[in-house]
Amino acid sequence: MNSTATESPRRSRVALLGFGTVGQSVARILCSGELPHVQLTHIFNRQVARKRVDWVPASVTWTESAEEVLASDVDIVIELLGGLRPTHEWVKGALLAGKSVVTANKQLMAHFGTELLDLARSRGLEVRFEASVAGGIPVLRALQEGLAGDRLVEVRGILNGTCAYILSRMQSETIAFGDALAEAQKAGYAEADPSEDLDGADAAAKLAIISAVGLRRPIRVTDIATRSIRPIEPVDFLYARELGCTIRQIARASVEDSGAVFAAVRPALVPLSSGFGRVEGSQNLVTVRGVFGGETSFFGSGAGGSPTAVAVVSDVLSVAARGDGKPSNAAATKFYTVSGDFVAPHYVRFTVSDKPGILSQITTSYAKYGINIEGVLQLPKFRKDRLPFVTTLEECPESVLDRALAEVAQSDYHVQPPLALPMFS
Amino acid sequence: MNSTATESPRRSRVALLGFGTVGQSVARILCSGELPHVQLTHIFNRQVARKRVDWVPASVTWTESAEEVLASDVDIVIELLGGLRPTHEWVKGALLAGKSVVTANKQLMAHFGTELLDLARSRGLEVRFEASVAGGIPVLRALQEGLAGDRLVEVRGILNGTCAYILSRMQSETIAFGDALAEAQKAGYAEADPSEDLDGADAAAKLAIISAVGLRRPIRVTDIATRSIRPIEPVDFLYARELGCTIRQIARASVEDSGAVFAAVRPALVPLSSGFGRVEGSQNLVTVRGVFGGETSFFGSGAGGSPTAVAVVSDVLSVAARGDGKPSNAAATKFYTVSGDFVAPHYVRFTVSDKPGILSQITTSYAKYGINIEGVLQLPKFRKDRLPFVTTLEECPESVLDRALAEVAQSDYHVQPPLALPMFS
Repeated sequence: MNSTATESPRRSRVALLGFGTVGQSVARILCSGELPHVQLTHIFNRQVARKRVDWVPASVTWTESAEEVLASDVDIVIELLGGLRPTHEWVKGALLAGKSVVTANKQLMAHFGTELLDLARSRGLEVRFEASVAGGIPVLRALQEGLAGDRLVEVRGILNGTCAYILSRMQSETIAFGDALAEAQKAGYAEADPSEDLDGADAAAKLAIISAVGLRRPIRVTDIATRSIRPIEPVDFLYARELGCTIRQIARASVEDSGAVFAAVRPALVPLSSGFGRVEGSQNLVTVRGVFGGETSFFGSGAGGSPTAVAVVSDVLSVAARGDGKPSNAAATKFYTVSGDFVAPHYVRFTVSDKPGILSQITTSYAKYGINIEGVLQLPKFRKDRLPFVTTLEECPESVLDRALAEVAQSDYHVQPPLALPMFS
Repeated sequence: MNSTATESPRRSRVALLGFGTVGQSVARILCSGELPHVQLTHIFNRQVARKRVDWVPASVTWTESAEEVLASDVDIVIELLGGLRPTHEWVKGALLAGKSVVTANKQLMAHFGTELLDLARSRGLEVRFEASVAGGIPVLRALQEGLAGDRLVEVRGILNGTCAYILSRMQSETIAFGDALAEAQKAGYAEADPSEDLDGADAAAKLAIISAVGLRRPIRVTDIATRSIRPIEPVDFLYARELGCTIRQIARASVEDSGAVFAAVRPALVPLSSGFGRVEGSQNLVTVRGVFGGETSFFGSGAGGSPTAVAVVSDVLSVAARGDGKPSNAAATKFYTVSGDFVAPHYVRFTVSDKPGILSQITTSYAKYGINIEGVLQLPKFRKDRLPFVTTLEECPESVLDRALAEVAQSDYHVQPPLALPMFS
């Protein structure tokens, strides 16, 4: 019963585009001698001379020319360059030159996945992209093949390590967002411009890929509603703890019985005792719900050179093992319309300059929009001129809550805008 | 990027052996109209007349003759009969008749997996068995393909729902083992003869399969050391809680740097806050550790008709999609020698008729065998003539501890034998 790759007619020749952290980890595994069916033949990088290492076999061609790789006799191109330009053109070029592609590039797949998969299919080739989502956790394969017999209707995930790191630091150390971000940048968990991570675009790209593969609903990444984690303050963790919760950036997509597709990325309250509440640092967690199989969860390293390299190499072995067989990717289809207007219970934190009548005004607005209050929380010892308190609300559509809060926000007692977070059970 | 099965040259014809809970769930999915590439054509069961249901298409042949199925033109046989005889012969017969096999039969695969996989491979067929381990969680596929690029060196799992149910009831209700077992039997979570579950044979069969697929170390199920959960008492949960732990049946296998293979199934202490500590009822959890990718965990429904059916149908779709391609199973190899003698910290509970000098005698024996004591726990208010107390021990090989305890057990103050449980961090 032991098995990995199957016999291949010959060793598959593999080129590596990009020799950064992940690329070097991939090369280490490919050159470890444990994988007899694949052979690293080319490494492409800009300024390749400063990248050369002595543990790569002398038979490997080092090059600064992507054209040279595309014109070579390699069977599989591993793309670890990131970005969309010129990567998109090079990946298309590889497919047009008859080479299958393995990529870790979430933006490439989220934006051009259907086009690239169509092109690959039309030529009997493959594009595999396990490493583009949740690093070393083989979640795409599990959804696409392992749960193929189910009809998956919801996916929830913690897919961004930068947010998980910052939010878990704010939770454990009660430090301000800016301090946690600075710490994350110092520790290498956040980039100099962390917008893509903090504001949701990174997780949205991954969610678009999971939605296409797992829910079989391709959606445009630009259609996914996102909200930033930047407005989260230490006081939100205090109130969340009162509710048995903490805060994480949650990516969520679902297919309703009506066929409607929902998708959003935003900070949310999750129970401290739940799997989501216990995710820290660069760990990722993906939970899917199927009509037949119920909930299944996948947990592991969402980033890092070695775990991501495992996903890349596993894809390479799959392509190599399939040999002249059929490609595994089915036809891509149209994009689905998607809404971010989930119905959920909510946490709403107000920060006010206190005076009589505020709660009455707010509750009147809630009532006007048919929103039911579940509870009101006000911890002691805050300054009256900058008083944070929380209302928890029963299930309502986010759009309805947004309208109610837009009305509430007109009043002059707000020190800062109200912060609304969905609550997951 | 949406994709499940690929185009098949024609619809694959599928026969179902066994129409119990899982078989009916499989048939429901196959007949749902959502899977255009596979067609249910035969249902075999004993006394098939009493099994007939009206939601199965009239085109399906109901039969009490396995021979009829094997002689038919079906492409894939789904084996859900369980047991070894006559199942083993029928599965061989199906392969000899040119049919691929999908099975949920852990005992069949643990005992005859290598033989059946060899036979299938020699004929260009497949045997798939995702449902034999961890029900609806696609863990075998994840290990075999999704983590193919890693070298996995350890697997730990909660693989038996009966034990998880009984132990979580004992934990939450502080009831005796016998009462929890009776409750489990009444609720349908334990069979009339629950020995295979309680004493570890069920989990050992699953561990043998995971070891072969994930660690690439086929081991004989009969070589796996097992210990029963029957000696666990409510007092063990009290002491475990003092240590921040609870108790679960843990199946564990590892490959050491020396190449030595370890495997065992036994009750163990696990932290309350860990994934293992939070598993209840029929949930399963499998955690693997790889050289490159670190730890990855899979969590979901380990039993139940629908989740298991999802695993079966996903395997059917894989076989159908592969069509005339190469089978995915590589050559089976020899069985590895395996030891159950893990080195671990331990919890040892003694139940004694109290008198002076007992702890001194025990610690002297520990010292003689080079075992270091980490702590001693004795909760108040127990009867002196039936006093439970606990020693926690630093890491030592289980075999050394066994010898020390055999010596300690000679003394006349024991009301019952000492209970030793490994402690997992």
